[in-house]
Amino acid sequence: MKKVGIVMGSDSDLPVVNKATAILESLDVPFEVHVYSAHRTPLQAAGFAQTAKEKGFGVLIAFAGMAAHLAGALAAQTTLPVIGVPCRSSNLDGIDALLSTVQMPSGIPVATVAIDGGANAAFLSCEILALSDEGLAERLEGYRREAAEKVLEKDSKISAGFSK
Amino acid sequence: MKKVGIVMGSDSDLPVVNKATAILESLDVPFEVHVYSAHRTPLQAAGFAQTAKEKGFGVLIAFAGMAAHLAGALAAQTTLPVIGVPCRSSNLDGIDALLSTVQMPSGIPVATVAIDGGANAAFLSCEILALSDEGLAERLEGYRREAAEKVLEKDSKISAGFSK
Amino acid sequence: MKKVGIVMGSDSDLPVVNKATAILESLDVPFEVHVYSAHRTPLQAAGFAQTAKEKGFGVLIAFAGMAAHLAGALAAQTTLPVIGVPCRSSNLDGIDALLSTVQMPSGIPVATVAIDGGANAAFLSCEILALSDEGLAERLEGYRREAAEKVLEKDSKISAGFSK
Amino acid sequence: MKKVGIVMGSDSDLPVVNKATAILESLDVPFEVHVYSAHRTPLQAAGFAQTAKEKGFGVLIAFAGMAAHLAGALAAQTTLPVIGVPCRSSNLDGIDALLSTVQMPSGIPVATVAIDGGANAAFLSCEILALSDEGLAERLEGYRREAAEKVLEKDSKISAGFSK
Amino acid sequence: MKKVGIVMGSDSDLPVVNKATAILESLDVPFEVHVYSAHRTPLQAAGFAQTAKEKGFGVLIAFAGMAAHLAGALAAQTTLPVIGVPCRSSNLDGIDALLSTVQMPSGIPVATVAIDGGANAAFLSCEILALSDEGLAERLEGYRREAAEKVLEKDSKISAGFSK
Amino acid sequence: MKKVGIVMGSDSDLPVVNKATAILESLDVPFEVHVYSAHRTPLQAAGFAQTAKEKGFGVLIAFAGMAAHLAGALAAQTTLPVIGVPCRSSNLDGIDALLSTVQMPSGIPVATVAIDGGANAAFLSCEILALSDEGLAERLEGYRREAAEKVLEKDSKISAGFSK
Amino acid sequence: MKKVGIVMGSDSDLPVVNKATAILESLDVPFEVHVYSAHRTPLQAAGFAQTAKEKGFGVLIAFAGMAAHLAGALAAQTTLPVIGVPCRSSNLDGIDALLSTVQMPSGIPVATVAIDGGANAAFLSCEILALSDEGLAERLEGYRREAAEKVLEKDSKISAGFSK
Amino acid sequence: MKKVGIVMGSDSDLPVVNKATAILESLDVPFEVHVYSAHRTPLQAAGFAQTAKEKGFGVLIAFAGMAAHLAGALAAQTTLPVIGVPCRSSNLDGIDALLSTVQMPSGIPVATVAIDGGANAAFLSCEILALSDEGLAERLEGYRREAAEKVLEKDSKISAGFSK
Repeated sequence: MKKVGIVMGSDSDLPVVNKATAILESLDVPFEVHVYSAHRTPLQAAGFAQTAKEKGFGVLIAFAGMAAHLAGALAAQTTLPVIGVPCRSSNLDGIDALLSTVQMPSGIPVATVAIDGGANAAFLSCEILALSDEGLAERLEGYRREAAEKVLEKDSKISAGFSK
Repeated sequence: MKKVGIVMGSDSDLPVVNKATAILESLDVPFEVHVYSAHRTPLQAAGFAQTAKEKGFGVLIAFAGMAAHLAGALAAQTTLPVIGVPCRSSNLDGIDALLSTVQMPSGIPVATVAIDGGANAAFLSCEILALSDEGLAERLEGYRREAAEKVLEKDSKISAGFSK
Repeated sequence: MKKVGIVMGSDSDLPVVNKATAILESLDVPFEVHVYSAHRTPLQAAGFAQTAKEKGFGVLIAFAGMAAHLAGALAAQTTLPVIGVPCRSSNLDGIDALLSTVQMPSGIPVATVAIDGGANAAFLSCEILALSDEGLAERLEGYRREAAEKVLEKDSKISAGFSK
Repeated sequence: MKKVGIVMGSDSDLPVVNKATAILESLDVPFEVHVYSAHRTPLQAAGFAQTAKEKGFGVLIAFAGMAAHLAGALAAQTTLPVIGVPCRSSNLDGIDALLSTVQMPSGIPVATVAIDGGANAAFLSCEILALSDEGLAERLEGYRREAAEKVLEKDSKISAGFSK
Repeated sequence: MKKVGIVMGSDSDLPVVNKATAILESLDVPFEVHVYSAHRTPLQAAGFAQTAKEKGFGVLIAFAGMAAHLAGALAAQTTLPVIGVPCRSSNLDGIDALLSTVQMPSGIPVATVAIDGGANAAFLSCEILALSDEGLAERLEGYRREAAEKVLEKDSKISAGFSK
Repeated sequence: MKKVGIVMGSDSDLPVVNKATAILESLDVPFEVHVYSAHRTPLQAAGFAQTAKEKGFGVLIAFAGMAAHLAGALAAQTTLPVIGVPCRSSNLDGIDALLSTVQMPSGIPVATVAIDGGANAAFLSCEILALSDEGLAERLEGYRREAAEKVLEKDSKISAGFSK
Repeated sequence: MKKVGIVMGSDSDLPVVNKATAILESLDVPFEVHVYSAHRTPLQAAGFAQTAKEKGFGVLIAFAGMAAHLAGALAAQTTLPVIGVPCRSSNLDGIDALLSTVQMPSGIPVATVAIDGGANAAFLSCEILALSDEGLAERLEGYRREAAEKVLEKDSKISAGFSK
Repeated sequence: MKKVGIVMGSDSDLPVVNKATAILESLDVPFEVHVYSAHRTPLQAAGFAQTAKEKGFGVLIAFAGMAAHLAGALAAQTTLPVIGVPCRSSNLDGIDALLSTVQMPSGIPVATVAIDGGANAAFLSCEILALSDEGLAERLEGYRREAAEKVLEKDSKISAGFSK
């Protein structure tokens, strides 16, 4: 099974990364986590992406804030799908990271998820890998069913609370 | 080979859709194009997504503007990867469509590309399908090389023009 | 008397919902509260809206944050008036939810109120129901008079405080 | 049958108003159109709203741009439902009018639709009046069916065009 | 000497109002403070502005948040200069109040100051009244000199701290 | 009678300036127009403001776009009221000029009007000068009455057109 | 004398680049112009920056739009000062490029100028090179004087036009 | 060696200034720190910039919030490179200061760094001074290497933590 390669631009992004790794672990998807900055260690970031395919990665996820170039820098070096998670930093509520991640030029796409959307980056990577892994597809569908059931349980409890 | 399922919310999105289909054709990837509105034909939109996997689709791309719910509406009905293209309409420069597409809740990701980014939606769908299709992976890499060469040709011409 | 149907996309929206239910109770308007997610339980959300009219609902209110599709998803399934309350989540101060709720395409309107505007959603639903319920219309006007009196009492106290 | 009262703050809003009146005419809903500015003729605007109920109006729609106060000024004078249409003027793409219309304080709601959303203001007013007019409810549902059919016709044509 | 008329739309704006009254007191300018809501007590707000000139007011200052219509509602009723202070409320950082206050239509100006800019509203009102009150003009210039001196004292202290 | 001093940062602002001078001429208010850039001719801009009072000016109006510092630069040099008109330039729709003009620090207010709001800057300057010029006050009120009448004439024509 | 190295991400940025080269030519500053995309030709972009110092460049200027990573990608590879010019593309008025350029992480600065600010990028590069080139410093000051004179000539003409 | 001249508009900017001075000290670059407000002490701010070159300064850094004019006011008085640091104040997350700093008119550039980007302002000033100071250039490169090593150390630790 192909691995998910997770790269964060700074260890301050770790809380958002943890949302992703928790999902990947619960869905039994192998992954690696790295800290490579697009600006402080551009060579390592580029090198990781260039060799990702041959090392068995199927999808890359990049976490970065502010002028969030990391996802684009990885995408420039590989034709593997690259998912970008714009991370909120101390100012501007993450809109800087969102625009820096999503507004990529033609030819080098980044699959962007919500600001601080670590969990959805993990789910998206699983959806991609599940295209050739029926077991994972079933686990994903199982997760969806459970999520729906949790909503319906809350509905039962809350609607009952208001109708008393 | 799995197909790409393209859905636009309104035929006014066709010029942006055409950017995607041109890429898919040039990379020899099979696709279907539909017009289903998340709000005017919610049943058909949901139905398309629910049956997409069994009909041989591998990735879905949704094009929509304004309160762009289409990508999310498809994503809610399938665990196939869904790519969202926020389309600019007459007001707000597409920021409404971008936020409506990308800010999805946990569990139901949409892989969002740039505003009016039809070409990148196509490239991203190819990157996903290329994970299990080495021929497509090579065509994608060929495209990248050609794009790089075009940049370098422009560099030669323009840098020469300035150094005369 | 027709009921108000309240749906929240997530139980994290409950504090904003409570602002609405407090008003409805004080104005003696019957209501039901549900938790249905447009993305996690799309069938239940759609089903609720499809049958709302025959079940005696006159107005629906949807509470949702981020890419807030819930109001639009309900509106797509019914010609009852649907009120949307954009809820602020952890990032972007609610502007994502506001644009996702208000920028609906032609034909499927959502009556949008302020970000976190649960109280006004309740008042608006009462104004709608009061069109065929003169008693409710009088209670609404009474509320307006009281609100005005409270302002004038504050004016007396504060203006006196400054003129001492 | 109750009438829809349409007020525009300036005759420059007429093109957006016309989107609304076209819908009301096609759905056979009686309406009146006025030009009253919240700032240039505040008395007339307030007076219109104060007497709207007794004159047989059931819903008011206000069209205004920039610091769009008109909908709020009407809403302050009546407990009839008031719909606000933020109109784009020469700068800021209508975001000023949207925020000035939707961010109303508690107790005085304005049912806000999309920027330049004249058509949806008309549909929303019909949905409200249809609560006590089954014929109008049926005409609204008919419109929805037609709109859906138009989408599906476009789907047939466009999907066929791509599959040739 | 003409008075400054201060109106706040809600007593939650009192902390920002206090910044203004402190300045007016220190510059010996008479003022009155009122709580009138443009939406909850439109008559009183309008009435205050209509009679302001004959009651000896020379400038009005309006404090309001969200869809901040108060300054515009006063300005619509008087040709006295009206200063608007956009107040930050719980969402959107005050940008809603700023746009609702400043983007007035031609003919009815509001002199807008910074978000939560209570102090500057007071200074501006004094600058206006000082046009026919040389004593106030001198007190204003005295304030400016003191403010400059405070800056220069801080400069001495801070620049010395760094050059040690 | 005191004069209005108009300064534009660049002659590209002339079309917006002309909206102001047309109003001032029609209300018989004397004025001077200058081109001084806060950045290209800071000395002249500062000098104009420093000597404005003694030269018989009562109000200054500054027109500038982009990082619109001109109004603030004038206000820093005089205790005369300074009105700022944020001008839209080729990008950002004038929001840069608006924030650069209105967000002044405590002690140095700028009375900001709408983006490209040349006419309202003129009206505001007249309202200020009219505090000690009853004739101007009457002309201003006359203008208001005429503006109201124009609205009501349009109302007659348009409302009749729709009721035919 | 050190050269200015100009890099544009795409030849669509050429009109903005031309504003810079015109200034550099008129101030007699040597420069080279290249087209290197941060994403399509990341190696060439990085290589250019890595060798820039030894090749005699003193300052680099990067022109890019959308998710404008080019300036940051150059800055990551050199300790020469890098100036970033955010270029407006078809959507979002350049705010995406501005935030992607200016919001750089600590340690890797980009000296950002206005959106489409090609001329100011040239002036800034000259100011930097002039620190060790007194002749250039004088030419820059000459330019400033001329610019000031042009403003004052316009002032003479325009102020005379209004005082006739 | 030329000095860096640091000016803050208000002592409330000191925490951001301290990020800059810490870098300058660690890189052994001489500097002075001043508090001069563009609006409260315009003469002193202008005077500092006018004499900065002859006093041995090579670069100026301006820290200011809100309608942040300080950097532009300095730049208007000198052809030394001026770096602007937009500082976040209580509202608007610093976007007001960013636009007021970066959107300078042609001819008077400000080298703008990130919101609250005190550290990068210091690094940029060092990059500029290092053009004629090979020792500083080496210290800067040393800093870059150390920063890269810190990233790689974190990578080792974090990637190991996840692979256990």
